[in-house]
Amino acid sequence: GKKKAADAKKNEFPSFKITGFTQLDSAAYSQSPNNIATVGNAQDGTGFRRARLAVQGKVAEFTSYQVEMDFATAGRPSFFDTYVEQSNIPYLGTVRVGQFCQPFSVDSLTGFRNLTFLERSLPFLAFVPFRRVGAQAANIADDEMSQWAYSVFRTGGYKNAPLGDNRYGVDIGDVGGVSFSTRATHLIQYDPHANDRYLWHIGASYDYSVLGADTAAGSTTQTPFYQTRVLPEFGPLGYSEDAQAFGFANNSTPVFVDSGRYPANHFNLFGLETVYQNGPWGVQAEYMATVVDSIVGNIFYNGAYTQVAYRLTGEHRAYDKKNGTLGRLVPFTDFFSFKKKGIQGMGAWEVAGRLSFVDIRNPDSLNGQYLNGTSNAGNGTLVDSTLGFTWFLNTHTKFQGNWIHCMLNNSDRGHSTANLFVSRVQVDF
Amino acid sequence: GKKKAADAKKNEFPSFKITGFTQLDSAAYSQSPNNIATVGNAQDGTGFRRARLAVQGKVAEFTSYQVEMDFATAGRPSFFDTYVEQSNIPYLGTVRVGQFCQPFSVDSLTGFRNLTFLERSLPFLAFVPFRRVGAQAANIADDEMSQWAYSVFRTGGYKNAPLGDNRYGVDIGDVGGVSFSTRATHLIQYDPHANDRYLWHIGASYDYSVLGADTAAGSTTQTPFYQTRVLPEFGPLGYSEDAQAFGFANNSTPVFVDSGRYPANHFNLFGLETVYQNGPWGVQAEYMATVVDSIVGNIFYNGAYTQVAYRLTGEHRAYDKKNGTLGRLVPFTDFFSFKKKGIQGMGAWEVAGRLSFVDIRNPDSLNGQYLNGTSNAGNGTLVDSTLGFTWFLNTHTKFQGNWIHCMLNNSDRGHSTANLFVSRVQVDF
Amino acid sequence: GKKKAADAKKNEFPSFKITGFTQLDSAAYSQSPNNIATVGNAQDGTGFRRARLAVQGKVAEFTSYQVEMDFATAGRPSFFDTYVEQSNIPYLGTVRVGQFCQPFSVDSLTGFRNLTFLERSLPFLAFVPFRRVGAQAANIADDEMSQWAYSVFRTGGYKNAPLGDNRYGVDIGDVGGVSFSTRATHLIQYDPHANDRYLWHIGASYDYSVLGADTAAGSTTQTPFYQTRVLPEFGPLGYSEDAQAFGFANNSTPVFVDSGRYPANHFNLFGLETVYQNGPWGVQAEYMATVVDSIVGNIFYNGAYTQVAYRLTGEHRAYDKKNGTLGRLVPFTDFFSFKKKGIQGMGAWEVAGRLSFVDIRNPDSLNGQYLNGTSNAGNGTLVDSTLGFTWFLNTHTKFQGNWIHCMLNNSDRGHSTANLFVSRVQVDF
Repeated sequence: GKKKAADAKKNEFPSFKITGFTQLDSAAYSQSPNNIATVGNAQDGTGFRRARLAVQGKVAEFTSYQVEMDFATAGRPSFFDTYVEQSNIPYLGTVRVGQFCQPFSVDSLTGFRNLTFLERSLPFLAFVPFRRVGAQAANIADDEMSQWAYSVFRTGGYKNAPLGDNRYGVDIGDVGGVSFSTRATHLIQYDPHANDRYLWHIGASYDYSVLGADTAAGSTTQTPFYQTRVLPEFGPLGYSEDAQAFGFANNSTPVFVDSGRYPANHFNLFGLETVYQNGPWGVQAEYMATVVDSIVGNIFYNGAYTQVAYRLTGEHRAYDKKNGTLGRLVPFTDFFSFKKKGIQGMGAWEVAGRLSFVDIRNPDSLNGQYLNGTSNAGNGTLVDSTLGFTWFLNTHTKFQGNWIHCMLNNSDRGHSTANLFVSRVQVDF
Repeated sequence: GKKKAADAKKNEFPSFKITGFTQLDSAAYSQSPNNIATVGNAQDGTGFRRARLAVQGKVAEFTSYQVEMDFATAGRPSFFDTYVEQSNIPYLGTVRVGQFCQPFSVDSLTGFRNLTFLERSLPFLAFVPFRRVGAQAANIADDEMSQWAYSVFRTGGYKNAPLGDNRYGVDIGDVGGVSFSTRATHLIQYDPHANDRYLWHIGASYDYSVLGADTAAGSTTQTPFYQTRVLPEFGPLGYSEDAQAFGFANNSTPVFVDSGRYPANHFNLFGLETVYQNGPWGVQAEYMATVVDSIVGNIFYNGAYTQVAYRLTGEHRAYDKKNGTLGRLVPFTDFFSFKKKGIQGMGAWEVAGRLSFVDIRNPDSLNGQYLNGTSNAGNGTLVDSTLGFTWFLNTHTKFQGNWIHCMLNNSDRGHSTANLFVSRVQVDF
Repeated sequence: GKKKAADAKKNEFPSFKITGFTQLDSAAYSQSPNNIATVGNAQDGTGFRRARLAVQGKVAEFTSYQVEMDFATAGRPSFFDTYVEQSNIPYLGTVRVGQFCQPFSVDSLTGFRNLTFLERSLPFLAFVPFRRVGAQAANIADDEMSQWAYSVFRTGGYKNAPLGDNRYGVDIGDVGGVSFSTRATHLIQYDPHANDRYLWHIGASYDYSVLGADTAAGSTTQTPFYQTRVLPEFGPLGYSEDAQAFGFANNSTPVFVDSGRYPANHFNLFGLETVYQNGPWGVQAEYMATVVDSIVGNIFYNGAYTQVAYRLTGEHRAYDKKNGTLGRLVPFTDFFSFKKKGIQGMGAWEVAGRLSFVDIRNPDSLNGQYLNGTSNAGNGTLVDSTLGFTWFLNTHTKFQGNWIHCMLNNSDRGHSTANLFVSRVQVDF
């Protein structure tokens, strides 16, 4: 008895389980002639947007780990959330070390598998550092109505790029390259008797990033720089080994806004967010502004989005108090495959709309300062309006369609539009 | 009781398990001088031909998934069968969406881990689109004597190539690029009292593929094209990042027949197949013909193979009625490692022979039409005769050897021969 | 009952479990001016040094398998120990076929997750072929005081390189390319009543490698060659797709000693080792010498290291009699996260020192013989002294710091020094 129990205890760690998901996306583009001239001729296509496998488990009572790789995105495979975490530390709460989404914005921290639309919003795509290597402390108030997290992390991603996923979880460079980020959220309304069905959440985020550089001979990033490149709220499908300059689309979704790469020392990023859920109704909005301390002085960019979702079949989404994010939608009935005389269900149905914009206009004084062959060709503003529907066949399988109407105002080439008709089949496990 | 059962139900999904296999191949080549001059000096070598891991499970009662990656083939890793599947749908049967082997040919759909020889036959290698992203419906007759499947899928693989595995599960291009494929099989003899030991299966397949192109500026595949490249029934070992033109063999098994790349709009592919099993005897044969609607009119290619296997130790192979394919051989006794006074077994032993050919001769009118630096240098006919043996140590471990005698008739350089002495250690799980 | 048992038996194989580990390293360099001039300006950085996932299990009573990939090192992913193994064979013992660490040196065969310092010693880094594809037999004496292993394997790794991990488990080339390696160890002192706490182990290794070449047109390795490149006992962090010549450090830890690449036919490698453990004290030392049969006659290189570790908290390390290696340290108490009124522990604490050197000086007669653009610029001697500490939070989580003082004597540029302040967060499962 006793020995057996001790053995069981002994064999409990390490534990493991596998989780992951795949997203198979299709896209059909309709671009105005000036849009083709500006961003390139976007090709229709079908392909895996994400294919992610993670191993997670515990190695001791308060120590857990995760190793997550994505086989569809740029690194083929790329490092995603790969970290070790120690919980129950006084004052600090839960400490995490590794590569993970830095604490900033509810859009950023809501898991990919639970997105309302096919991709996150324009301001997220434009401004948030996202997955980096660092250390974070996170905690929650005793009444569970507030949570907060803060982290220090290496600024640079792949080749010191300050934004976008750090595909290999590596940052190298003797210059700068340290960031601080924090986010705090609070539930100002929460019905404790109705699960997460009725709530109102507000939050704020702040990030200070010292940009980094690699000063070794032969490095292509000898100067700290800033660059943001914005996709039209639909992700890349294609062969990431072939890099694309702005204005090209030969093998992937083209970039719609590109600030170019220019010398800069640091940036300050601010964010405000709110989430409101009233049964089948969900509303979410964010505003972000970034101030880049560049070689020509401060450059100001900003963006925002607001989105509304309605579940025709009445469901709501779960809320994760620990992370201050929305979670999964669980359909009231699964879509049962029809047996001959069997039960039938419809799954859950959601419709949603989003309006988002980013303003990434560069001052003329930057001309002549751009690095690595980039230029002022891509800067401008982008407004997207999106209509979407989601059919949840069951808790883990969904089919989504989005119509994205992009209104681009490129500083060089002026106004152009594109319509994206995009769909996704997703299974998660 | 009741709550516990409900909890168990709740926790049942998603489920996962890991399956996979590795194949470690060795090759020694003996080429005639003209063969070296024609295809390049093939180097002896040892290496992993395939190393595949898949996660599979169910996310709802009738919804299953698989994510499969191969770490040895071209993409390092490459997408293999990665899909979500919904069963029990009336009329349609089982619907699958994702990347998977399109329904065509018994040789194609027999799993790699259950091949009689080290690789599939010449006509398969030459003509079958194989793994693509698409949607398939498959069903089986009530008496389980017939099954059929049909699919629509994106034609293009890696950079719009119409044949060979689609290594990243992506197809991009504004032109064409949609295919239809179907296969139906029937058991005209099946002894229901002897498992799968006595059976005679026939089948037919058809594929119509509209070839695709990427018209964006900078694309290297602006015109829909056809190209087939045939290996000598032994797979590539090497560093796939270095592409090889026809006639080179610096780091891999060389291509023996190459049609070159030429403009074409679509192709029609036809296949006939039969499988016969009489206890330890197994016979299998297929014929395939493809008609390419090219820039110079219809081009006709064809090929066939026939193979015989005999299990010295008496075993037969399982038969999968749902897919109309042969399955695993389960040895009567395992090869037990000899304990000092312990039991001993021999495993199972199989000998087999195969004769296969492809005829891929181009009309002279194609000269001057070849794309991307290809030419008419590689077209011709290839006949392979193969002798093979397999030692099954147990249900999951086998050692195989093949002697492949290749008789190549290159349109430019005439007749040449090569002998390949190749072996494999395989474990699957 | 009976049927159920038979079913259980039937379902027992194949089994699988997942194991792996991640190492997140950080480095700060302080180089003397001449060191920067000699090896390049090493950049500070943080990144994953190793991120390894393995699937392992049994497919029959005496047949086991492992598939292991690393997502952080050069191949992204790279093949690591991937093999099938049959045990209980008389005379031979356990036979393994696949890619694995060839039997040579206790430093080499001690698993990465159990290293005392962040990386293995200079002589290991300089001389040992390490992971290759081959076949090995291993056995242990009846009294378990001695074990031995021997193997034949393909000499070449990635593009016929004779040393360093064979990232893709492939070796190709018509010339040479076969090696033999063996290692035997003996416990001359072992207290059977105290687990592995008191022991004295000695061992010897020998490797004979016939160097290989790929003679196909277009190959960059047409001549058998020798080359060794030595890192300063800290591993590469960075983007391995960009190769670095000696003297560059734009995206990774620079190589400190590089023999250059020169024609050679074979080499003989010898090793002696000892391990001593007295409770919390551990001592380990090795000597290695290699004789390269080069185009200018025999070239002699050698190296050695000695290291001492002391566990402040009293623990010892496990010993693996089957492999003749040290294993894991299990802390007496875990570092418990502090609960409000809860239990507390400190984990285990270890301090250690190591002195190591390699002498890789080339004769002048090699000038003019170097291949592939290499030269005599990198040859010389390197001495490292290292101070290290390890905090084991629990059996599977540790935090390590090393101060490595490198004393380089480059044949061209003379003496220079570098100090590396490096740390690691590791979790294994």
